[in-house]
Amino acid sequence: MTAPPDLPARRHASLVFRDGRFEAGARAVPEEVAVAISIDGSTHAVMMASPRDLVDLGLGLALNERIVADRSEIERIEIVETELGFDCQIRLAPARGATYVARRRQMAGPVGCGLCGVESLELAAPPLPVLSAEMRVPPAALVEAVAAMGRAQRLGQETRAVHAAGFFVPGEGLLVLREDVGRHNALDKVAGRLAEQGVPAAGGIVAITSRVSVELVQKCAVMGVPVLVAVSVPTALALDQADACGLTLVAVARGGEFEVFTHPRRILGAAAKDGETRDAG
Amino acid sequence: MTAPPDLPARRHASLVFRDGRFEAGARAVPEEVAVAISIDGSTHAVMMASPRDLVDLGLGLALNERIVADRSEIERIEIVETELGFDCQIRLAPARGATYVARRRQMAGPVGCGLCGVESLELAAPPLPVLSAEMRVPPAALVEAVAAMGRAQRLGQETRAVHAAGFFVPGEGLLVLREDVGRHNALDKVAGRLAEQGVPAAGGIVAITSRVSVELVQKCAVMGVPVLVAVSVPTALALDQADACGLTLVAVARGGEFEVFTHPRRILGAAAKDGETRDAG
Repeated sequence: MTAPPDLPARRHASLVFRDGRFEAGARAVPEEVAVAISIDGSTHAVMMASPRDLVDLGLGLALNERIVADRSEIERIEIVETELGFDCQIRLAPARGATYVARRRQMAGPVGCGLCGVESLELAAPPLPVLSAEMRVPPAALVEAVAAMGRAQRLGQETRAVHAAGFFVPGEGLLVLREDVGRHNALDKVAGRLAEQGVPAAGGIVAITSRVSVELVQKCAVMGVPVLVAVSVPTALALDQADACGLTLVAVARGGEFEVFTHPRRILGAAAKDGETRDAG
Repeated sequence: MTAPPDLPARRHASLVFRDGRFEAGARAVPEEVAVAISIDGSTHAVMMASPRDLVDLGLGLALNERIVADRSEIERIEIVETELGFDCQIRLAPARGATYVARRRQMAGPVGCGLCGVESLELAAPPLPVLSAEMRVPPAALVEAVAAMGRAQRLGQETRAVHAAGFFVPGEGLLVLREDVGRHNALDKVAGRLAEQGVPAAGGIVAITSRVSVELVQKCAVMGVPVLVAVSVPTALALDQADACGLTLVAVARGGEFEVFTHPRRILGAAAKDGETRDAG
């Protein structure tokens, strides 16, 4: 058995239990590696990720976590492979770097201050920009965004075990598709790719294969994407934040059907029903 | 519309697109809150979680991340609700607390040391205990563990949007079931509940609804659970670590079928085929 060509996956033998007996089997499983994101030599985060598109991941994460406001604030990104995983080394442009170190020193704080829990909770709910882009999307574009993402998920088709995120522009199609064992990583990779290409996120739709937790809404808001369509279900907090930041959140998008939960004004045909999608308690 | 009784979920209105037109709909969505885990007044971690069984979560995380080796090293756990979420405040027993602060101070290190990326990658792959418990499980017990978990997932049935983890003992049934928007949290909650009840994890099976990433294997190893059965697919790194630490990893467990990937000796009828489940490259 060989690995699928150029995909971060590996074939692994198994014993399949079926109809009451065991038989030899095999399955393609996705690679998963530790990736450190280092900013000017200090670790900002460590995550498990699919070992591909790591420059996109580092750039997208730096943007989505608002370490930088713009691609130009980064001098260079270098991926260093070690035995234990990858280190995505981001070097900030000099002016930006000084600000980052000052903020980091301030955040370190004393050990055992007794308030850290509350302070840390504040960091989990950062104030979000309000999405003002007023695109109008026909329902068919949402269905096609999800379908196009599905067709492009090569690692997903091979393993049935990774998430994907895509950027779709009505009339132009799927411009970016990124896959990862982690759904947050997949979206960060899309953000990084868009920034690298200079594509304005305000003109399109983000499609994701997963559920919608609040962090994915936060990332869309920071990216400036006005419409998010997800294959699975949102959390209550994701809906609260989508409502607050002006994101049109569409979910449970399967088989040509979907549900609009917030800001339906951007969906043609749904706009007339606006007002019915408020939290019904 | 009202919230389902005593479940951390909420009904939210939606506009359903079906057969080419929009109609009013509603869906139960799971609550999601920020939870800080504080150890002796310092934040150890902040995560998004389902607001339930938070003592189990804090205790299980402290055990699974090896902040403590045993329940007795914790003096008390208190859940403090704030406007921004919950603070799970863990107070260590005095002797343990001194060790924790010393280790934390050491780990803080200088800013910008240039090595943090590599050091942080080491933390992502901690050395794991080897699982020596030698139970023998009939295939039917694995099928029943997953089925029993499915029957017990009340929040999952209501929302189709949360993960679950359960602890199943052949002949006794499902002893613990925990649900959460995060799959890591669900397993940490199970670990905490087992420790609270004094149930030895070495005598049972952990069942999970999700894919198997490497962190879930690490948690099972620290818990001492010899068999993990998952509804979905493992990553390659999860298989590597399961192989190394002696965990019997069973996955893709659906509809009465499943696949054994590592250490089949604990599964009756599969043991004879051991040696065929090595990485086939």
